[in-house]
Formats: sequence, C-alpha cells, structure tokens
Amino acid sequence: MNVLVVYAHPEPRSLNGSIKNFIVQRLEHAGHTVQVSDLYAMQWKSALDPQDNRSPTLGARFDPSLDSQQAFVNGTQSIDIEQEQNKLLWADTVILQFPLWWYSMPAILKGWVDRVYAYGFAYGVGEHSDTHWGDRFGEGLLAGKRAMLVVTAGGWSSHYEPRGINGPINDILFPIQHGILFYPGFDVLPPHVIYRTGKIDAAAFAKVCDELGQRLDTLWTTAPIAFRKQNAGDYCIPQLTLRPELAQGEAGFGIHVSHPDENKLSQHRVTVEQSDLMHAEQTR
Amino acid sequence: MNVLVVYAHPEPRSLNGSIKNFIVQRLEHAGHTVQVSDLYAMQWKSALDPQDNRSPTLGARFDPSLDSQQAFVNGTQSIDIEQEQNKLLWADTVILQFPLWWYSMPAILKGWVDRVYAYGFAYGVGEHSDTHWGDRFGEGLLAGKRAMLVVTAGGWSSHYEPRGINGPINDILFPIQHGILFYPGFDVLPPHVIYRTGKIDAAAFAKVCDELGQRLDTLWTTAPIAFRKQNAGDYCIPQLTLRPELAQGEAGFGIHVSHPDENKLSQHRVTVEQSDLMHAEQTR
Repeated sequence: MNVLVVYAHPEPRSLNGSIKNFIVQRLEHAGHTVQVSDLYAMQWKSALDPQDNRSPTLGARFDPSLDSQQAFVNGTQSIDIEQEQNKLLWADTVILQFPLWWYSMPAILKGWVDRVYAYGFAYGVGEHSDTHWGDRFGEGLLAGKRAMLVVTAGGWSSHYEPRGINGPINDILFPIQHGILFYPGFDVLPPHVIYRTGKIDAAAFAKVCDELGQRLDTLWTTAPIAFRKQNAGDYCIPQLTLRPELAQGEAGFGIHVSHPDENKLSQHRVTVEQSDLMHAEQTR
Repeated sequence: MNVLVVYAHPEPRSLNGSIKNFIVQRLEHAGHTVQVSDLYAMQWKSALDPQDNRSPTLGARFDPSLDSQQAFVNGTQSIDIEQEQNKLLWADTVILQFPLWWYSMPAILKGWVDRVYAYGFAYGVGEHSDTHWGDRFGEGLLAGKRAMLVVTAGGWSSHYEPRGINGPINDILFPIQHGILFYPGFDVLPPHVIYRTGKIDAAAFAKVCDELGQRLDTLWTTAPIAFRKQNAGDYCIPQLTLRPELAQGEAGFGIHVSHPDENKLSQHRVTVEQSDLMHAEQTR
C-alpha cells in the first residue's frame, strides 16, 4: 500500500520528528511504500494567493475559488500544488501528523490544505441537483482512500474529555476530520492523539510507539468514523440539514455520525410504515 | 476607543476588502482610532520557526514553547511579532476578519496567532496551583478587552444551522472564540457571519453593511458570550472538567457557556444548603 504522511513540525529532533520517523520505519518494515511531505523542510508556502496560478489573468480581480479552478482546469497550477495533489492521488492512505497549536493545525499545514485543495480537485466536484449537492462529504476525487490524524497535545487528556475545558477532542478535530478529510471523500479513521507531550521520557516514548504501532498495523482494517454521506438520503437538499427523523431532537457535530443501531431502526420504521400503509389500504 | 482589525484576504477588491474598508470608515466616523493588520499586504510570515527569536541558541534543539518564552523574556522576539503584540496591548477591541476556508481561518491568520501568541504573552501566564491553573480562559494579559469575529462563508446559512451538515457555526468557531480569544482574557462578542457570499450584489452589500454597522455601533454595549472562567469555581482543578453539578449530564462545547438562570439556580442551591444547615443546627 502507498502511504502519504503530511508532517508539520519545525524541529526534526522533536517528539513529532521522532514520531514521524517511527511511522515511516514501521510502515516500510511492513512492506508499504511511504512518501513524507515534511512541510517545514520543504519550506512550504502557506499563503494562498495569485501566484498559485502560473498563468494568472493580469490585472483581474483575484478570486480564490475561481482562480484555483482556472489554474486546475488549464494545468497552470503552481508546481508545488500539483506535486502534492499527485501524492494524494498516489496514496491509499494519508496521515496528517502535527502538534495541536491553538486547538487546530499549525499554519503551515493549514496552508497546505488551503492551496492543495483546489477547486475541481477537492471541492466544486460533481453535479448539483435536487438530490445531489456536489460530490462531497463521502464522495469526491479522494473517495476509497483512508485518512488518519496523528496529533500531539501539551495538555492533559482530561482537558479534552467530553466535559473538559478545551472541549471534547473529537469536536475540536471535527472541522478537520469531517470538513477537510471526509469532504473530498476520505474514509476517516479515529484519530490517534498523544497527550501531555512535555512529560514524555524514553520509557513513555516506548509506550507511545507501541500504541501508535498498533494503529499503523491496523490501518487497513480499522473501521472508519461513520460520518453520514451527504447524498445518500440522510440530508434534506439543498438545505443540507439532517432529516428530522434522524437523531431526533439532537444537534451539533455528533449527529453527523450515524448510530450503529440506526439502520436497524430505520428498517424497522420502514416495516412499520409499510404495515400502516397496508392497514390503511385494507381499511380504505 | 482603540480598535485593531486583523484582516486576512489576498484581494483588496474582494467582498472582504470592501467589508474591511467599511469597518474602518464606520469606526473612524464614530470617533474611534483604528489600526489594521492587513496580513497579506504585510506579507505576514505564517510559519512559526527558530527565526522568530532574533537571538536563538545556536545548535540547540528548537522547542516552539520554550524558545518563544526565551525570546519574549529576553526581548529578542522577531520585530513583526513585537509590533503585533503592541497593537494588541494598545487595542480596546480586536476584530478578526476573514473568509472561512475549510471550516477555519486562512493559514496566514493562523500563522499570526501561532507566532504573536507567545509564551508569557498569551499563554504560560500566571501561577499554577490547586485552585488556579494559570491566567487563562477569562484571565490573562488581554483581559478587559473585547474581541469579535467577522466571518464570510460561501455556503448557505442552513448548512451552518444546529442540524446543518457543516456543523453549527458556533461550534465551528468555538476553537477560535474560546480557544484563541477567551483563552488570553478577551471578552468575546457573538460573531458576525455573512453567508452565501457568491451571491452578494450591490443591494445585498448595502444590507451587509447595514447589519454589520449595527454590530460596530454596539461594540461596547453588546453582551459577550458567557464563557465560564476557568478559575472562578466552575471547574475541577487540575482535571479542568466542568463540575458535575453544572450542566448535569451534558457534554460538548456548549457546556462552557453558562446558562443565564444558573446564577439564580446556584444562589437558590446555596440558600437551600444554608437552610438545611440551619435546620441541622437547630435540630442538633
């Protein structure tokens, strides 16, 4: 299998640098092919701007979306963007590895997303109609591939628990996992988060590797997060709100993950409705 | 009053550029003093790295936090970082204005946060003890100042409603409003979000200005979001989980905003407890 690791830390001798090396070794040792986009080493350009199109329309008002689309269609995207898109197309699995800075990814990684996720590549794909609102949230050019976050955090795990002051880690990561990875089609595996990184000595690092190693060994068998596909019937289109009969009375990020018993429930509901219908027809 | 607008859009002739100009004009016309950090125009450096310390320790392993602390304490921070910190100290109110790109801020603005929010300035402030876990989440160097987000989004407002596919806008913005603004002490006003920006013609822009103008006219009187202060008794320390008797049985970002009736409820609870105590004393 082909694995792309997109890695964002400024210091190779950091905990993150060691984790990145471990990931590469573990995967290569298991026979996989690994490419690393080491954004700091590559001096990745973070700011999306008109120079991302090698052939911009001179004097025109710069529109981030339309310019991105034009460059993508005309084959005039900046070379660094094209290279990263090709790595994404090559990969079977993509790992984004980063320290959590201010409850999100470092700027250099956000700039990778902003620039590589071109119109026509990661969004603006597919038709818009009354039943299909673009190939996104479960469909798209990256469908069939897997993705996983490997994240380090300085704080304690309790600070990221459901009632922790930072908010639940799954909610903090939702805009990335759902909005950046599931959006263009990735199956998103549960994240691997390493807490309290300031306290990791050699013994603790061995444990970090052991636990992360298990995740890497099961990359192809771990069940993805059950995010709901946009165009598979769960959402009203074009409002894109969850249908009222699903997760009734609930709101928030959590409702976009389907409940394991839901299929059974909705099959049951269909059966009841059919039975009601038959009853209605019989008594008509 | 002094207002700092931190603005992140690559095209001055964009909707965001027009909104930024409107904000400046409206505030100056009302007699306020405005500074704008136009990050694209400033060619703001996004990536936090060893060069952010003008006097780095040669050959040392770069630690983002400790290096930031050292540079802050020794007065050797990069000049661009110092300038932005001085603007923050000068401001009574800070507005972050940006287009929502991939459910977060553009990389260049995240890089402003990553670099300007130094250790000793925006975090790592205050003592840690059994009752006080640093001056943060409601305390800190920026306490007493106000902050507000002005955000544009291409999607429909229904996509950002409580049951919309993107997740509720308040949850998408929570890591910024709570994790970046409330953390170093800002009082955070409700965000001003402008949706479906691709469809804004001259008539719609007049309406945009009218609504935003009302928010700007009431910057100093609008009630902030009632985020709970970390060290005021609502959290168990050091776990930093919300005390079990508050928002009982609930979880997620929403529990970190106190309920308007809660003070009355807890006063009531105290009264009941006192009454129990008096009763216990009377019957002893």
